Amino acid sequence: MTGPFDTAEYRARVHAAQGEMQAEGIAALLLTTEPELRYFTGFLTRFWESPTRPWFLVLPAAGDPIAVIPSIGAALMQQTWITDIRTWRAPDPADNGVTLLAGTLKEAAQGGDIGTPMGFESHLRMPLANLARLQALLGRDLRDDADIVRRLRMVKSEAEIAAIATACAIAGRAFARVPKIARTGAPLDRVFRDFQRLCLEEGADWVPYLAGAAAAGGYADVISPATTKPLERGDVLMLDTGLVRHGYFCDYNRNFSLGPPDADTRSAHARLIDATHAALDIARPGATAADLFRAMDAVLTGGQGRGDAGRLGHGLGMQLTEGLSLIPQDHTVLQPGMVLTLEPGCEVAPGRMLVHEEDIVIRDGPAEPLSPISGPEMGVLE
Amino acid sequence: MTGPFDTAEYRARVHAAQGEMQAEGIAALLLTTEPELRYFTGFLTRFWESPTRPWFLVLPAAGDPIAVIPSIGAALMQQTWITDIRTWRAPDPADNGVTLLAGTLKEAAQGGDIGTPMGFESHLRMPLANLARLQALLGRDLRDDADIVRRLRMVKSEAEIAAIATACAIAGRAFARVPKIARTGAPLDRVFRDFQRLCLEEGADWVPYLAGAAAAGGYADVISPATTKPLERGDVLMLDTGLVRHGYFCDYNRNFSLGPPDADTRSAHARLIDATHAALDIARPGATAADLFRAMDAVLTGGQGRGDAGRLGHGLGMQLTEGLSLIPQDHTVLQPGMVLTLEPGCEVAPGRMLVHEEDIVIRDGPAEPLSPISGPEMGVLE
Repeated sequence: MTGPFDTAEYRARVHAAQGEMQAEGIAALLLTTEPELRYFTGFLTRFWESPTRPWFLVLPAAGDPIAVIPSIGAALMQQTWITDIRTWRAPDPADNGVTLLAGTLKEAAQGGDIGTPMGFESHLRMPLANLARLQALLGRDLRDDADIVRRLRMVKSEAEIAAIATACAIAGRAFARVPKIARTGAPLDRVFRDFQRLCLEEGADWVPYLAGAAAAGGYADVISPATTKPLERGDVLMLDTGLVRHGYFCDYNRNFSLGPPDADTRSAHARLIDATHAALDIARPGATAADLFRAMDAVLTGGQGRGDAGRLGHGLGMQLTEGLSLIPQDHTVLQPGMVLTLEPGCEVAPGRMLVHEEDIVIRDGPAEPLSPISGPEMGVLE
Repeated sequence: MTGPFDTAEYRARVHAAQGEMQAEGIAALLLTTEPELRYFTGFLTRFWESPTRPWFLVLPAAGDPIAVIPSIGAALMQQTWITDIRTWRAPDPADNGVTLLAGTLKEAAQGGDIGTPMGFESHLRMPLANLARLQALLGRDLRDDADIVRRLRMVKSEAEIAAIATACAIAGRAFARVPKIARTGAPLDRVFRDFQRLCLEEGADWVPYLAGAAAAGGYADVISPATTKPLERGDVLMLDTGLVRHGYFCDYNRNFSLGPPDADTRSAHARLIDATHAALDIARPGATAADLFRAMDAVLTGGQGRGDAGRLGHGLGMQLTEGLSLIPQDHTVLQPGMVLTLEPGCEVAPGRMLVHEEDIVIRDGPAEPLSPISGPEMGVLE
């Protein structure tokens, strides 16, 4: 399958981008990354794991997108709504599609500006030497895309929201089964493997992200892979998963206590849930990303600032994190259809923290939870 | 855990890179991608799945590397052998580490050239706008790294080879269990989920890559995700996995026939195994990547050229594909320690192909298989 959406959805995305391109004076967009290509085409493959082959999409300010891709992807691209598919035999270390791409961009831009994402969260997925060669062939430099693609992707369609809700429901069923796989004495790396297995059994297509930790009364870190250390009574086990269904992520976590939590841990967890609700209560159109940060930070620190984790939530969708950041500097105004995480964290003691995370979608009126919002009590494991 | 290797291994890698840097006149290297950072530090996390935060490593031509990273990664980086760790609070859309990075590069390069990977298979994992800002702060442009990092990574240490062998053994045990999960009537997407589960049960840390297909007498495509179509008698089921253990990949596949294969399919599969052996027989130091291509192509097409898949194998290690390509244009000379796949493919009928893949390591003398080389007969499923 090449994505869960019908052609009308992709055409609407292209149309919206083209409106912005015309306003910004951009005659053609060059897109090079997995989510950018998939957003406009529905092209869904795990083959991006290989760094060898570049993939390009050229989006003119009017007319349909043109795929400029390695021939190994032609059969799959033909299953999408894209009809203009130009291929080369990759890998070809000498050219690797640059000549074909330059010709296509010239044709699409007709002498006008060519944009590509250059701002926050972007990267160009092609060698810099090939960018230089491309610009020489074009006789001009690429310009910034004015953040068009990132901004468009922030507001999800109902079909996208449904896909994320499905991913969240799968993770919810997996979290409910954690007591079966995580007990005192179980090595953390086995718990990680077993939890990924549960995600697959519950319907994940794949599990690109799992982080977590287990330590007495809180953990030092939320991005580490698993150690072989067995779970001990008094540990807090945190599992944070980004599983994918039909190309869309969930991203939320659960904390569990091995045996009953002590008073500090219990109170810290309850405070995280309070912070989550403080943001949820004001998460509606017109509020800003910074407002949600401040609502949580008031509960967490009395408004003192922020933890070293850097932000208290973020957008998500085709990527584990994308779009807005719940930080004081992000003044993005919430709109219906934005999907985001609320991710409050707090330090229980020096070097020991707890982090909690839920997923929500902004609606007209109150926000809608996509993950099953946790109560104040942590799950207790034996 | 931050990788399976001891500090001496990372120091040896740094030392080798520094020798080449001095020969090329490069005073400091800037590295920005996951495998590049991990190669020199052992920093292993799945957090790279998030595109929001850039991560940098500065490698001076003499002295230890310097990590310039978001503070969320400091605790994990401190577990590696790296001691000079400089952090900023990310995400910070306004600067996002560029100022800190510029200062560190100036200090490390002392006015000399600063290189970064710009060639084949590389990309720069930071926004282009931030590259421009960095170069403005430095008062100079970055230059190409002369392919130093890619070339070094091609030749694996014994510890790396052992890690890849472990990944291959895990996949081998999972492939052996395929008859339990793939029978006539099983939907392909369920087979994909179940196969990933088997990989985890057999010891994979995670399963970043699974592709495959099932169709009568051969498939049109080897990069597609699974459809919901049930397996039918007469189908060839192909599963191609890149699972990870301790940060190292395997990458090989197996073809299975639903019911006994017909004569054409059987003969095509046997030819792929013949082609694999033709390459294996000559895979030793001194032969080139192109030689292996030609040895396989002679069996596959009588030396006519190549399939649209583009290459008949590739290097692997920290990435699913990396380093050399078995194509006529790649004249890389094989050296002991190079790990690669042999991946012959053939067209059984128009639009229907079979592809086979195994993993080997180049040794003094004959190459050593890392995956259990398949016999000529396909596995038969009920």
